[in-house]
Amino acid sequence: MTNSSADYDITAALAQFASSTRDDDLPRDARAVMGLSVIDWLAVGLAGRDEPVARAVRALVVDEGGAPQAHTLGLEGRFPARAAALLNGTASHALDYDDTHFGHIGHPSVAVVSAALAVAEKVGASGAAFQAAALIGVEASVRVGLWLGRGHYQIGYHQTATAGAFGAGLAAGRLLGLTAGQMADVLGVLSTRASGLKSQFGTMGKPFNAGIAAANGVEAALLVAHGLQPRRGALDGPQGFGETHHGAADPTAIAGLGQVWLFEQVSHKFHACCHGLHATLDALADASAIGADTVERVDVRTSPRWLSVCNVADPTGGLEAKFSYAQVVAMRLLGHDTARLDSYCDALCHDPQITALRRRVAVSGDDTLSETQARVTLHLTSGEAVKLYHDLLEPQPLALRDARVRAKAESLLGATRAAQVQGLVDGLADPSDIGIQLAQV
Amino acid sequence: MTNSSADYDITAALAQFASSTRDDDLPRDARAVMGLSVIDWLAVGLAGRDEPVARAVRALVVDEGGAPQAHTLGLEGRFPARAAALLNGTASHALDYDDTHFGHIGHPSVAVVSAALAVAEKVGASGAAFQAAALIGVEASVRVGLWLGRGHYQIGYHQTATAGAFGAGLAAGRLLGLTAGQMADVLGVLSTRASGLKSQFGTMGKPFNAGIAAANGVEAALLVAHGLQPRRGALDGPQGFGETHHGAADPTAIAGLGQVWLFEQVSHKFHACCHGLHATLDALADASAIGADTVERVDVRTSPRWLSVCNVADPTGGLEAKFSYAQVVAMRLLGHDTARLDSYCDALCHDPQITALRRRVAVSGDDTLSETQARVTLHLTSGEAVKLYHDLLEPQPLALRDARVRAKAESLLGATRAAQVQGLVDGLADPSDIGIQLAQV
Repeated sequence: MTNSSADYDITAALAQFASSTRDDDLPRDARAVMGLSVIDWLAVGLAGRDEPVARAVRALVVDEGGAPQAHTLGLEGRFPARAAALLNGTASHALDYDDTHFGHIGHPSVAVVSAALAVAEKVGASGAAFQAAALIGVEASVRVGLWLGRGHYQIGYHQTATAGAFGAGLAAGRLLGLTAGQMADVLGVLSTRASGLKSQFGTMGKPFNAGIAAANGVEAALLVAHGLQPRRGALDGPQGFGETHHGAADPTAIAGLGQVWLFEQVSHKFHACCHGLHATLDALADASAIGADTVERVDVRTSPRWLSVCNVADPTGGLEAKFSYAQVVAMRLLGHDTARLDSYCDALCHDPQITALRRRVAVSGDDTLSETQARVTLHLTSGEAVKLYHDLLEPQPLALRDARVRAKAESLLGATRAAQVQGLVDGLADPSDIGIQLAQV
Repeated sequence: MTNSSADYDITAALAQFASSTRDDDLPRDARAVMGLSVIDWLAVGLAGRDEPVARAVRALVVDEGGAPQAHTLGLEGRFPARAAALLNGTASHALDYDDTHFGHIGHPSVAVVSAALAVAEKVGASGAAFQAAALIGVEASVRVGLWLGRGHYQIGYHQTATAGAFGAGLAAGRLLGLTAGQMADVLGVLSTRASGLKSQFGTMGKPFNAGIAAANGVEAALLVAHGLQPRRGALDGPQGFGETHHGAADPTAIAGLGQVWLFEQVSHKFHACCHGLHATLDALADASAIGADTVERVDVRTSPRWLSVCNVADPTGGLEAKFSYAQVVAMRLLGHDTARLDSYCDALCHDPQITALRRRVAVSGDDTLSETQARVTLHLTSGEAVKLYHDLLEPQPLALRDARVRAKAESLLGATRAAQVQGLVDGLADPSDIGIQLAQV
């Protein structure tokens, strides 16, 4: 590997991108998707802020105290920006209900929005500057993730934490007004600071990984602003982060940077359950007019990989419900809101209508289907068969995504609160006004 | 790799070691060496606390403020333990003059003592408890370093930062009274948090790596105490820290844990210059009776590796002097104190006696010598030749090490201050009394 070729010097490209892109040059659609992701981040963060992992990090933050710089999820008052990023990154990923980018296999907003909001509050940035920094940060994190490549993820690194930290640092650096050289230094600090492993999946360590990405980003940017000078180019240089962390150093990762906004392809989760169930649930969206009482039986075909993950036949409680094709299909056909956290509960697992319907759901693996695809056939009492298909990667019109994110926020926060949060984000409110929301009941 | 065999489950072994070893079971020699390392840590930390990298981290710590828990190098008042660990770890490694363990190729004390002192102050631990925790932490860090192996270091990881964090976390956990299970969780958190690359060498990123090790250790222990539950066994388990970070998982690394104290072999640096010059300077110690005016010429033979590192023939300033065989040999023969930072200065580079003598120093590579060995021959005006040899790895009697560390502290701090610091450490003073020293002029 070499980093001497300007063709794929990712440090220089990202440093230039983060420092020189003008707010006015950010395209409308990318900004709109960023706004949706901020709304989504607020909704899942507020819904998850009392999870056990959030409480553990919160206790550390309270015990440390410090200068009132930024608001945090679930605490009154303000705390140092680095601590706020740690807590908010962790809490917003606690439910695993935040946005996902399948290109870089990571959750961009929990790392980057957490860092950007904390620093935006600290420096008193405008709402527009905050959203621009967040957009540039998430785009950078996707690019770093692509540059590191699939091998980095497969060997065991958690891109949300690793690639996420670099995006978080650039977002923070932009809000601090760092030069291109300083941005390169932020990447240099993060090359020795970023961390996070997939082996934490299934434990509190997973959401904590998002917190450390956010905190690392804030820390690196602040330290560079305070004069820390690391090895510049330690991301892509010899024995740098890429080389040591099984990175592919894919030169195509920065193609079109600043022109093409890969972040626009981000996916929002619209069901509060295992990702393996989402394509099936989205396929059923096209059958909303069909009454459950007219359904004789349901045939679900999915990627065989999911069968060992989320195919509990007879769930007995809320957690099992989140991993059950039969349960969520029955819930959906009977009109229950699969976006709500409290839909996955003991009561619905034992509901007579649901248990009767879910026994008529057959699930089978189909190796022609990818992990983002599902085929569902509704066999009706009339003898008719309704064939449905969905691929999560299929681009959705922005207007539809907008409506669904807002509906999700309403499911999680209730109509009044959701409207308040959306109004702030849509109106590019001051970051401090958005921050205050994190603490409100 | 498997971690199912109890033979080399390093997580369980270290967790047990850190939680169950009784202060009374710590052998006298190991405790004595730990005391020397604390004195050494204080001396190099106080001498380095105003270096640029320390000032950058200090600015972050001041900007954040927070609960008065622990003292820091160079600041008045107290700060949160995690912040104190970050600053003290960084500042004490700023001069690269702290202790080194050649077995695990790392600097144990800057990570572990920084973490232990901060948490000891926070919880009001006794001096004996602080030194016991530090000793157990440094021993653990050496064991983790050996377990990770040379490949981990060669590929680009900085053991001071990576292995150091695990030792720092166990030291902190011991002071918090964590159970063996919680200690395993501390290792689990650190598996996803620890980081640090050698590509930072030659920049402020190197000392910063020691700071992040210390801070990571404190953070992990505090979070576990607050209820964070990570993947236990993420150090040695599937896709754990070892597997993902090119670790060898050497099962012999924990042999004799609790019986054999590998930390006792730690080396202290006695010359404020490049490590490549130390064997030569120590060889000259056996010729202290020989006057410089009786030396016709000097022949230095060293590992060829060092010739490209520290063989500046005619240094013109302090930094070059630190990388010059000829200069330090001349300084030593003329009675200048090579332990003092200010001996490496412009004035001595241009001193007529030194420049005259250094022209008579010939340096050559000898590939029968390792990097820790040097042969020096003094050709006297009488025609006699005095042959000297030193190997830094040769064990030194404890009494000699003790005298040399104390002399070094005196060189760095002056007699009065050195006596004060030594008295506190020797007397197992309360950690807060030691902490106060960090801030004093």
